[in-house]
Amino acid sequence: MNAGPTVALNTIWVVLAAAMVLFMEGGFSLLEAGLVRTKNAVNVTMKIFVDLTIGVLAFFLIGFGILFGKDYGGLISFDFWGASQHLSIPIDLPLSAYILFQIGFAIAAVSIISGAVAERMSFKAYIIIALFVTSILYPISGHWIWNADGWLAQLGMKDFAGSAVIHALGGWAAFAFAYVVGPRRGRFNTDGSVNVFAPSNIPLASAGAFILWFGWFGFNAGSTLNAFDSNLSVIALNTALAGAAGGTSAMIYTTFRFKKADPSMTMNGALAGLVAITAGCAYVTSYSAILIGLVAGILVIWGTLVIDKLKVDDPVGAVAVHGVNGVFGTIAVGLFDAKDGFFTTGGTHLLVVQTFGVIMIALWGFVLSYGLAKLLKSTIGLRVSISDEEEGLDMAMHGIPAYNELERFSDQPIIEMALAPKLSLGKEHTGLTVSK
Amino acid sequence: MNAGPTVALNTIWVVLAAAMVLFMEGGFSLLEAGLVRTKNAVNVTMKIFVDLTIGVLAFFLIGFGILFGKDYGGLISFDFWGASQHLSIPIDLPLSAYILFQIGFAIAAVSIISGAVAERMSFKAYIIIALFVTSILYPISGHWIWNADGWLAQLGMKDFAGSAVIHALGGWAAFAFAYVVGPRRGRFNTDGSVNVFAPSNIPLASAGAFILWFGWFGFNAGSTLNAFDSNLSVIALNTALAGAAGGTSAMIYTTFRFKKADPSMTMNGALAGLVAITAGCAYVTSYSAILIGLVAGILVIWGTLVIDKLKVDDPVGAVAVHGVNGVFGTIAVGLFDAKDGFFTTGGTHLLVVQTFGVIMIALWGFVLSYGLAKLLKSTIGLRVSISDEEEGLDMAMHGIPAYNELERFSDQPIIEMALAPKLSLGKEHTGLTVSK
Amino acid sequence: MNAGPTVALNTIWVVLAAAMVLFMEGGFSLLEAGLVRTKNAVNVTMKIFVDLTIGVLAFFLIGFGILFGKDYGGLISFDFWGASQHLSIPIDLPLSAYILFQIGFAIAAVSIISGAVAERMSFKAYIIIALFVTSILYPISGHWIWNADGWLAQLGMKDFAGSAVIHALGGWAAFAFAYVVGPRRGRFNTDGSVNVFAPSNIPLASAGAFILWFGWFGFNAGSTLNAFDSNLSVIALNTALAGAAGGTSAMIYTTFRFKKADPSMTMNGALAGLVAITAGCAYVTSYSAILIGLVAGILVIWGTLVIDKLKVDDPVGAVAVHGVNGVFGTIAVGLFDAKDGFFTTGGTHLLVVQTFGVIMIALWGFVLSYGLAKLLKSTIGLRVSISDEEEGLDMAMHGIPAYNELERFSDQPIIEMALAPKLSLGKEHTGLTVSK
Repeated sequence: MNAGPTVALNTIWVVLAAAMVLFMEGGFSLLEAGLVRTKNAVNVTMKIFVDLTIGVLAFFLIGFGILFGKDYGGLISFDFWGASQHLSIPIDLPLSAYILFQIGFAIAAVSIISGAVAERMSFKAYIIIALFVTSILYPISGHWIWNADGWLAQLGMKDFAGSAVIHALGGWAAFAFAYVVGPRRGRFNTDGSVNVFAPSNIPLASAGAFILWFGWFGFNAGSTLNAFDSNLSVIALNTALAGAAGGTSAMIYTTFRFKKADPSMTMNGALAGLVAITAGCAYVTSYSAILIGLVAGILVIWGTLVIDKLKVDDPVGAVAVHGVNGVFGTIAVGLFDAKDGFFTTGGTHLLVVQTFGVIMIALWGFVLSYGLAKLLKSTIGLRVSISDEEEGLDMAMHGIPAYNELERFSDQPIIEMALAPKLSLGKEHTGLTVSK
Repeated sequence: MNAGPTVALNTIWVVLAAAMVLFMEGGFSLLEAGLVRTKNAVNVTMKIFVDLTIGVLAFFLIGFGILFGKDYGGLISFDFWGASQHLSIPIDLPLSAYILFQIGFAIAAVSIISGAVAERMSFKAYIIIALFVTSILYPISGHWIWNADGWLAQLGMKDFAGSAVIHALGGWAAFAFAYVVGPRRGRFNTDGSVNVFAPSNIPLASAGAFILWFGWFGFNAGSTLNAFDSNLSVIALNTALAGAAGGTSAMIYTTFRFKKADPSMTMNGALAGLVAITAGCAYVTSYSAILIGLVAGILVIWGTLVIDKLKVDDPVGAVAVHGVNGVFGTIAVGLFDAKDGFFTTGGTHLLVVQTFGVIMIALWGFVLSYGLAKLLKSTIGLRVSISDEEEGLDMAMHGIPAYNELERFSDQPIIEMALAPKLSLGKEHTGLTVSK
Repeated sequence: MNAGPTVALNTIWVVLAAAMVLFMEGGFSLLEAGLVRTKNAVNVTMKIFVDLTIGVLAFFLIGFGILFGKDYGGLISFDFWGASQHLSIPIDLPLSAYILFQIGFAIAAVSIISGAVAERMSFKAYIIIALFVTSILYPISGHWIWNADGWLAQLGMKDFAGSAVIHALGGWAAFAFAYVVGPRRGRFNTDGSVNVFAPSNIPLASAGAFILWFGWFGFNAGSTLNAFDSNLSVIALNTALAGAAGGTSAMIYTTFRFKKADPSMTMNGALAGLVAITAGCAYVTSYSAILIGLVAGILVIWGTLVIDKLKVDDPVGAVAVHGVNGVFGTIAVGLFDAKDGFFTTGGTHLLVVQTFGVIMIALWGFVLSYGLAKLLKSTIGLRVSISDEEEGLDMAMHGIPAYNELERFSDQPIIEMALAPKLSLGKEHTGLTVSK
């Protein structure tokens, strides 16, 4: 059976955009693995695999219906899979394409968290958090804006591709989890100074940043859900310009303030620009997109410094990138919106709505996450043991180091993989790795 | 000259999908380079380049015509390049787009093999194998199913995107080559136990897995060859769900059975889910796709253990991922097909056809590959020398190690690249690498 | 507001192609980071970020108008952003999509340079070069061919996707900068022989090559700017075949001449094939594409040897890949063009025009870049200090090494990141990295 040309074009557009958004998980994974210390790079990779496996199923089975199903009071739906019957956003698109695209968004929200809690959160606790975010936390607040009957949507809040819905939510949830789980051992000194743990692999992190940027075209332009949207290529162009501007200002700012062009900050600056334009990419001019990006690139650095001062330990800067700039980007719509923005029209209504709305989202993300974190801490535990943290989560939780290329320089025998003891199927496993 | 809108939309869909499928070679390469030992990472990368260079030309010049040309007895064609005149599948698509897409499939079949024979097969032998698979082995059995006149197609066998045609074929061919070439030195102990060689670079392997997953949307949904196929987005969604389910069950199973969430198995579990849904993605519901994926994630672990017990050495688990789950995925169509599946209708006809067909394909792959492997072994040799294997294939065959980042910690001078002796154009090359 | 179906299809085609072209920056970055020495991998990554941030803004604000605005004498435009009013190429496409696609092309031209000057050029000088290339050098010579009123366009020169406009220009500009900045310390011996500096990370470089190849489908087929172009899939197929052929001939040639299949040369051979087909992908048959690729794969090796003999130091082979094969590919149109090529028709007119045109472009790139390089050298300086070069540009300019995974094997404490001294917000920064 063949679709008509309108549906066909929309379908391939959204399927390709969804594939790009799902590919962003690879971007998160490489970025985070490159920015943490070597001994925890496998663990953070595995946390992204939790998002991409368990998170996908949870959102498909539970979250999607809550987000897009029949509305109750502007707050929630209980349709679960039955959402298909009441889908509240009229789309000229097969439901399956719509679901696939939304899956990519849902797991992006949780992948933001994985970076902020890297290097010390227990794997089991993270699995519960991923289930919680994809099936409850994100679908409910997403419902408020992206379900046409949601209470923030009804107020007129605009968040085209999710600066608030995804990034502010994920970023402030990440802040709560990072706060409750506590900083990595040795991160903060008693005199208030900060010890820097150098990123383990900058080229790997850069690969992650490039993949994220590539996927962002699907993220933002794909959010049209409509190949015929005459704004589609403006959205894509604004995305590129804001990312470029964010990287530019971060690179220049670190060069002047710290005398060196800082690689992590340049990458995070570009990502901050991308986060900040996500809400407004469809509503602002290209010049506004550049301005928004330039500001985002500075905010991410200031944000990092402030979060350090608060002694909340965020190994990859996820809160500064997604939390701070998710809020800024949402508010920026109130400032730069071509029709109703404060700078363009002098009107304040949209600015107030945007500011109020994103605060609600960020609070929702922070408060519920704080509650869950406290609950987990007092039950199954949120954090690995001191000895596991010292050893590194890779060996402690997954039985394998990230890089065994070093083996020939090491005097320690390479430790067995998780599977090793069972690979001989009942016999005692005798061997260690024989490398040469 | 302009195409009509139908052809235009089909063309860009298939060209983009083909680009994604060809990008999967990068996925194979990084996955395999990350899972083998450091000293063989360049060699396995170069084997993928063989596929992407020599393999592409061989399939273009020879294989394509055999697969899609004028049929003789349901078994073969001899059209070679003349296939264009008799192309047996009616497509509303330029021939060049069709060829490009099929090229990506052909080289995927051989890239499966490169992993299973990694770390000990001679480079020369691999080149011959790549030529053989892309110009003879795969085109002939592909003809049986994907040429409308093929004998398995006539029996009613269904293999939408190639669980049997690509994955079972490649996987069981890989098994034959891995068996004949023998295990890596030190892999199996005389008491039957297995020595684990730890993967050299887990983040690199994960990058490969993410790229493969991304490309799989092109692989499966692109197999519609028709942007108007109303099933297109269901196929893409089923692909994502089965991959997620495969990773989920593998991660959970290793956690419970081995007390650690195993990274290689989680990645291979996701890939196994993707392999298993490849045949049925267009024929089963999303719930069936999840079930198929969940089973695939367990089968890949059991398969790995069984293949180890058989003392066949498959460094990356290619046989368990592609061979075992290619067979399972093909049979799963007989079980879950929405119209004719055993579980959905009680009918057994399709189940029998699928099972018979995939056994034929796997046998074809195994038997011919076994024959070629024996032939190569008794002529030009299938395996590198013991000393080359000890040294590593990277230095022995390509004159360069994968990672020279270690040089400053090494007392050994870095050995010259292959090109080094000739770079001074006739003069004796004097220098070793000067690193600082 | 909705676009009509023609514009809609063109828009998503060009936006997706543009995303793929911009993703090529990731390819350049990983390829170059993998081919240079470890101590300079961060710096070369940061140079690509300069292209992707500052370069994007410069071309958007200045370069685009010069390239496509109202023509003066076939030579230049001064429209800057006003180009939208006089856009000289009729396109059935939103301006924003067109700009986005062209941005990707502009920064590719400068990214070619970053590899050739790696490991010794100052970061500040590179930023000026990037501004110069994206806002002046490339837009002017691009105007000559791709502005319909350009003087080379008027002569009938054909360069479909930029073998001359991007690759020959970038490659010969790179040659000038590499020549003036001088070779890396220790590269050439007084007796004329060459010291090889082994690439730091071959799998990383291969990841870059795979991404570049993937992006090249967007680069070449996207240059139709028209989804309805009936040649679109031929272009994509020719791209794949030429890349495959280039890798094939380079791999075979190094095997026979140097007795080892050389990994860097195989990758560069494939890229050379891609460069060489870029001008002619829309004008030649698939068999011609294979021939062009085969020749390119040899030329890149010869070119590397000749450039070494000239004692110009190009760490990644950018001149041989882009400069040599950009020229060859442009001339190849004069030889193989299906309508007017010398080999196909015996006519020499097109051959003469192509040869003349590409020499003009290469000269333009070389001469202006040579002038700028000399100017920079005598003012702000073009090259880092000897001690910075010895230490590596990563630590000297960015305060961080590429790989800290080695820390546990090192006796040296890991040095602080650029940001470290300020992270404690005013207090003296006390700690070094605590790794375990």
